[in-house]
Amino acid sequence: MHEILNLVESRSFGELRKVLEDMNPADIAEQMAEIEDVKSLVIVFRLLPKEQAAEVFSYLEPDDQQRIVGSISDKELASIVNEMFVDDAVDFTEEMPANIVDRVLRVSDPETRKAINQLLKYPDSSAGSLMTTELLRLKSEWSVEAAINYVRRSCSELASITYAFVTDESRHLKGVASMKDVLAAKDDELIADIMDTEVIYAQTTEDQADVAERFKKYDIVSMPVVDGEMRLVGLITIDDVVDVIEEETTEDIYKMAAMAPIEDSYMQTSVFSLAKKRIVWLLILMISATFTGLIITKFENMLTAVAILTSFIPMLMDTCGNAGSQASVSVIRALVLGEVKFSNILKVIWKEFRVSILVGLAVAAVNYLRIIICYYIGLYSVDPGQNIYIIAGVVSMTLVLAVICAKFVGCTLPLLADKLKLDPALMASPMITTIVDAVSLLVYFGIASLILIR
Amino acid sequence: MHEILNLVESRSFGELRKVLEDMNPADIAEQMAEIEDVKSLVIVFRLLPKEQAAEVFSYLEPDDQQRIVGSISDKELASIVNEMFVDDAVDFTEEMPANIVDRVLRVSDPETRKAINQLLKYPDSSAGSLMTTELLRLKSEWSVEAAINYVRRSCSELASITYAFVTDESRHLKGVASMKDVLAAKDDELIADIMDTEVIYAQTTEDQADVAERFKKYDIVSMPVVDGEMRLVGLITIDDVVDVIEEETTEDIYKMAAMAPIEDSYMQTSVFSLAKKRIVWLLILMISATFTGLIITKFENMLTAVAILTSFIPMLMDTCGNAGSQASVSVIRALVLGEVKFSNILKVIWKEFRVSILVGLAVAAVNYLRIIICYYIGLYSVDPGQNIYIIAGVVSMTLVLAVICAKFVGCTLPLLADKLKLDPALMASPMITTIVDAVSLLVYFGIASLILIR
Repeated sequence: MHEILNLVESRSFGELRKVLEDMNPADIAEQMAEIEDVKSLVIVFRLLPKEQAAEVFSYLEPDDQQRIVGSISDKELASIVNEMFVDDAVDFTEEMPANIVDRVLRVSDPETRKAINQLLKYPDSSAGSLMTTELLRLKSEWSVEAAINYVRRSCSELASITYAFVTDESRHLKGVASMKDVLAAKDDELIADIMDTEVIYAQTTEDQADVAERFKKYDIVSMPVVDGEMRLVGLITIDDVVDVIEEETTEDIYKMAAMAPIEDSYMQTSVFSLAKKRIVWLLILMISATFTGLIITKFENMLTAVAILTSFIPMLMDTCGNAGSQASVSVIRALVLGEVKFSNILKVIWKEFRVSILVGLAVAAVNYLRIIICYYIGLYSVDPGQNIYIIAGVVSMTLVLAVICAKFVGCTLPLLADKLKLDPALMASPMITTIVDAVSLLVYFGIASLILIR
Repeated sequence: MHEILNLVESRSFGELRKVLEDMNPADIAEQMAEIEDVKSLVIVFRLLPKEQAAEVFSYLEPDDQQRIVGSISDKELASIVNEMFVDDAVDFTEEMPANIVDRVLRVSDPETRKAINQLLKYPDSSAGSLMTTELLRLKSEWSVEAAINYVRRSCSELASITYAFVTDESRHLKGVASMKDVLAAKDDELIADIMDTEVIYAQTTEDQADVAERFKKYDIVSMPVVDGEMRLVGLITIDDVVDVIEEETTEDIYKMAAMAPIEDSYMQTSVFSLAKKRIVWLLILMISATFTGLIITKFENMLTAVAILTSFIPMLMDTCGNAGSQASVSVIRALVLGEVKFSNILKVIWKEFRVSILVGLAVAAVNYLRIIICYYIGLYSVDPGQNIYIIAGVVSMTLVLAVICAKFVGCTLPLLADKLKLDPALMASPMITTIVDAVSLLVYFGIASLILIR
């Protein structure tokens, strides 16, 4: 596993160089991250074949990149930055402190510097900040033969040649041709005749999440990016989109657990920042729980009269909270995947209603047995004048009704949130649990008052 | 939006044909899904340009595919199936009832039939069932010129030409060359000299999730698939991997909400099947809550003596449950993204400990104020002999301690589950909540006994 580290430590640089030549850049970066000593890290980096160095560098974590940049010459830095794809160079620059950014821009060649500066301007979550500029442009009047010759001369510098883009003299995007179609065409055909003029494109200012949706919908691997005047300015490739999808999912999952999303990885986020992301919802939910507490206060006398009722409160709250969360999480995920819309709300409610009856009855039946068994093995005791069968009946009836309510609340709130342009992910377990707690206690005390207190 | 539907209804077939020609297959499929009447659906399908029909068909939902297949001739069906990429044909066949599968296999040409039959054999979640067979093979002894000529003759039939694969006479995978490298090379260079012999490949029997991990790690867009004897049998493209990533995420999210994952989309899953996926964990968690109930039973006397204590139980359970879930969900997601490993457990615990102190103190302070304010506006009342300041102090001290415990439980259980080769996603909110409920009640009653009951 730590082949590189071992070879550095045994100072077998000749062998190390050979090993590095055959390794995949992503694997090299992974092993380099394990090297603690900066000197060894730079040794490994300098042993990399020239064409690999920039690629390995773009796979490294920001702190390793910074450690290397701190120890290499301006000339070495320049050769990395000029060799990297512009989007990787921008990703790297964005993570560096200001003095390193200055140095990067100072040493890189004018064209690279201009491209980096331009891309740095786009907001973090925009399509513009995701794109690279090394894309394949063809002219519509070119023959296929001329186009292929052009591709063969220029393609080693390009990020992707799967699609070629056709622009007019003012760089307006006019069409797209897949390399497959270009290669399959006859030599004398014109690009104008092969290209598709209905191009699926992104705007520089567009949200990355929306661009990712379009990648998924159309099953494409790269998408051109245009500015406000429809001028072709860059290309987004699917590997970056996969990262966006993962980030979006992480955000959703965080929100569903009552946390504001973090920007870096978990381990790289500071304690203070983690606490800040978590405290807001904890406070909101805690204060909302005041209401649930007041319901209990209101029925204090009943709880004193039939003390065993208190001991079922956690089970009722948890079971109904879980039942409600199941419905809400199912609906939230279906909304994210585009499987349901607000207009399906009646269908969804009817579905969850039937599910809740099945689930509620099953849980209630098992719960009834559980209480009776616990009673007979002596775990529960009831005051004289109370009947365990009736009490178990009250709890189980509560379960059926409260599970039905919980699933109803769980499935409707995310759809309503979506309709109101709020984030449905906020209507996940924590929020649903808080609401369902109050509902299930009201049902519980309602049924208990009717049956037990006469 | 529903341009197609309007044109069908106004019987403007000439215009419809023109509109369809310019539309993207994914958009056509989306609009076709809105057509309720089978006759109209088949009319639209028959108006599609021949080369588009198969692609549109592969974008349709299974029920729409079935409606069309039920109304077209064997000849039409054959032309669709033969035209589709084999992986799409397999995806379609897998969703159809047996009689349609028989018909598909009967009408398709021998080569397609053989390929479909072969891919149908692989288990649902294996790399084999994800791959297609239309990949680009080159011979190592070919010159670049010969290779390019070969690509130009054959590429229109292929699923992806981004990478070309080199095999020996027995079809063993020997190397890979990107089309970019092939095109950039000189005419007389040999493929053997360009190709990379360190190929990142998948095994037919391998789990799709593992393959998806490799796509992400190496930022690749297609991966060759080999059988047990390293013979090249297929190709997985990134668009299918994106679907796998989405499915894996959905599974994780379902497990995190105490549900077994569903196979189809939410709307297509039956009520009975949804109930089955949800009932198991509800029952397990309900029965586990017996323990929490017993804790309350044990401290019944104290709750009778200081009745107001009962009303804080829901708030304590919810807040600590949420605090624990925040930690567990953060760690689960970090595990999925490969950001933490079991070996980081001490670092994680230390991090969560510091977070829990910050969060616990903040929540406790606000809670203290909340109780005092509620008391003075008359929402709470205390029995004579009890002091609201002391009671609020007990509740707030419980919050600090219980939040620390909750975060500890929340961050360690997913890591332990991962170490024990269990799914960490099972250690999310519902499970953590159930455990943390018991812990927070024990802390609560412990502190209350010490301070209030003398």
